[in-house]
Amino acid sequence: MIDKLIIDESYELVENSKIVMVGTNGENGYPNIKSMMRLKHDGLKKFWLSTNTSTKRVDMLKKDNKTCLYFVDDNKFAGLMLVGTIEILQDNESKEMLWSDGCEIYYPLGVYDPDYTVLCFKTEWCNYYRHLKNVTFGINDID
Amino acid sequence: MIDKLIIDESYELVENSKIVMVGTNGENGYPNIKSMMRLKHDGLKKFWLSTNTSTKRVDMLKKDNKTCLYFVDDNKFAGLMLVGTIEILQDNESKEMLWSDGCEIYYPLGVYDPDYTVLCFKTEWCNYYRHLKNVTFGINDID
Repeated sequence: MIDKLIIDESYELVENSKIVMVGTNGENGYPNIKSMMRLKHDGLKKFWLSTNTSTKRVDMLKKDNKTCLYFVDDNKFAGLMLVGTIEILQDNESKEMLWSDGCEIYYPLGVYDPDYTVLCFKTEWCNYYRHLKNVTFGINDID
Repeated sequence: MIDKLIIDESYELVENSKIVMVGTNGENGYPNIKSMMRLKHDGLKKFWLSTNTSTKRVDMLKKDNKTCLYFVDDNKFAGLMLVGTIEILQDNESKEMLWSDGCEIYYPLGVYDPDYTVLCFKTEWCNYYRHLKNVTFGINDID
């Protein structure tokens, strides 16, 4: 059984984060990191992100969708890593679901801009760090 | 020739960051991210970090030292990724060089604590993001 406090603090860290660090497998076997807006999520289980279809990262994700997300609070020295995979969604329903005012800055042609892609990250396991301690737990161990 | 402004903003982003996100290759082909203190660095070329020898990450780095560092300013929507490799240093000179008051919290036995390890990251190339634009440059293109 996981300490309820760990789960509560993990949720809080996610809610308090405007951005999320996204780790992917880049070229030549090097890991890559990019920060993205934390847009929509289902607890710690799923996260929906938006990106330009034309980016190199989308090409890389088609080849290798293993990913991690990372949330950090550098005042509390707390960090949460979620490890899982990303699904690339380009259907209209997904695009409408994640669209909000202001997205035109990134996708000038609007909600059906072919350069607009939705990424859905699905968590497999989590690692929470605080007070000099790491706790690892599976996503199915929650609830 | 790289725009001097890109280099200046990259330096500034590093200097203003208390922490750095460290991306490594984790188990089963998944990327991992951890935040660490930004302790000492030589421009954008080299970064020295400290970690516990006993962590799984040190074991992983012995097998695969491909790494990236990431600095982010979420108010400016700016991000800097440095891609390169990490060297694991356990000699006394490196440990003394990076030691500072307060490190005892992490390494109770002091500067020669066998659980204290210095990591030296060496940059190969950089990617700077701001104003919706990415610029990629080699570390040898600076100066």
